[in-house]
Order: sequence, then C-alpha cells, then structure tokens
Amino acid sequence: MPIEKTVQQRSQCVFSNALDLFGDKWTLLVVRDLFFFNKHEYKEFLSSPEAIATNILSDRLKKLYAAGIIDEKIHPENRSRKLYYLTTKGKDLLPIFLELAKWGAKYMKDLPAMQNLYRKLGNDEKGLKAQVIADIQKWEAENLG
Amino acid sequence: MPIEKTVQQRSQCVFSNALDLFGDKWTLLVVRDLFFFNKHEYKEFLSSPEAIATNILSDRLKKLYAAGIIDEKIHPENRSRKLYYLTTKGKDLLPIFLELAKWGAKYMKDLPAMQNLYRKLGNDEKGLKAQVIADIQKWEAENLG
Repeated sequence: MPIEKTVQQRSQCVFSNALDLFGDKWTLLVVRDLFFFNKHEYKEFLSSPEAIATNILSDRLKKLYAAGIIDEKIHPENRSRKLYYLTTKGKDLLPIFLELAKWGAKYMKDLPAMQNLYRKLGNDEKGLKAQVIADIQKWEAENLG
Repeated sequence: MPIEKTVQQRSQCVFSNALDLFGDKWTLLVVRDLFFFNKHEYKEFLSSPEAIATNILSDRLKKLYAAGIIDEKIHPENRSRKLYYLTTKGKDLLPIFLELAKWGAKYMKDLPAMQNLYRKLGNDEKGLKAQVIADIQKWEAENLG
C-alpha cells in the first residue's frame, strides 16, 4: 500500500473530523496497545494478534505523531529503535476506549479474551482507569524521567 | 465501489471487533445523523455536509442493520421509502459519541459548527444527553407508536 492521500476535511463536524483521523481499522489498535498492553516499540505493535502489516503500522505511527496523539524518542540502548508513547492529547482518549469497552461488554459477550476487562469495567471502572493511568506513569518515570 | 468483503474477525479483542464494525470514515456519521440531526431517511443522510456517496450509504445502512444497530420500516406515506432508526443497541452508543465530542471540544477548538454542542457538553452534559434521548423518544412515539 502506498502512502495514503491526506484526507481533506469533510465538514466542520467534530465526529467527521475525528473519523478523518481515526476512521480506519488500525489506528485505534495502536492506541489500544499503548493504553492496555504496555507496548511502546514497533516490533511490539507488530506482534499484536491482529497482525498489522509493517507498512500500515508505519503509516499509522506517522499519522498519530502528526496529530499530536503520540510522541517518540530514540531507544536509550539502541539508536536504531524508537520508543512511542501517548501525549496528554492521546491519554485523553481513555474515556472513549472505556465507553467503547462498556458497549462491547454488553453486546459482544462472546469475546472470551476480554472477560477480565469486562469484569473490571462492570465492578470497578474507576479502579481500572486509575490502574491504566498508573501503569502509564510508571513507564514514563522509567523511560522519560 | 463494489460491495465490500465481509471483514473476518481479526482477534478476540473488543476494540478490534468494534473497529471491524465501525472502523471506517462513514458508518458512525450515519449514526451521528440519527442521534443529533433527527435524520431517518436515505435522502436525509445523503444531504449531510460530508456528501456521502449513494453506494457507500447503502452499504453502511445494510451493515448497521445487519449488526442490529439500526432497524427500518416502510414509510407510512410511500412504500418505496424507508425510515431508519436506532435500536437499543444503537442508542447505547451515545456515551461513546459524548466522550468523542468532549475530546473534540478540547482538541479541535477551531471547529465553529460544533460550538453549541461543545458549550452544552461543558456546562450540562446530562441535559444534552437527556435532550438527545427525548428527541429520539418523540420521533419514536410519532413514527413507531
């Protein structure tokens, strides 16, 4: 797949503009990996079960960076590797993910892999949110501090 | 554009499965029109500012129907027209839209068309939610009752 054309703004609507950014099958999966699976490297995103293609992953990382949702730094142990992490703008996407997960918990009950998250969302949404944020802060203290 | 291939389930992840359903630039705009703009007919969706193409609109209405997010009925005044409306499963997407709008309100401040919604979300999210639901119930009472 060649580099995609830049999407022209279709309207002044916030949802339309958000979909210009996120409206594909892959972009939010990279954000998911950053939020919930403590993934921060190219090869880690590649290893996710959806098996994203290398060219799509490169493109989506560039888009997320250009949109200010992720930032990157050179890996301290290897200058050919990069570490990717969520900016404040990216971290502010968490409530959208949590609402999406709640909807999924109600209407996609046949997904066994997420039972754990479902249970947490049902019983202790605040606790889950705090844990995700604490995990991110721990990674940041170790890697950006 | 030909009818798209059915997307195979990529993983057991709720987000991946949700993106198999919504991960494109158009599907959620039809849902937006149902929630916020009281649109219920094919020609009304076509008239939205993003100028969706007829074949894409037909495809997305079929997908939303197949996913149980919208239902349809024959227009009482014209058997060649249809009325589309959100099911309970569809209406339960409202919190996701509201979180998306809040994120947009924070990070897409240059969108003048949504200032009104932004203000409502900032000052009275509960009131906005109640109004959207009341508008839907009014339509339902008039058209499905």
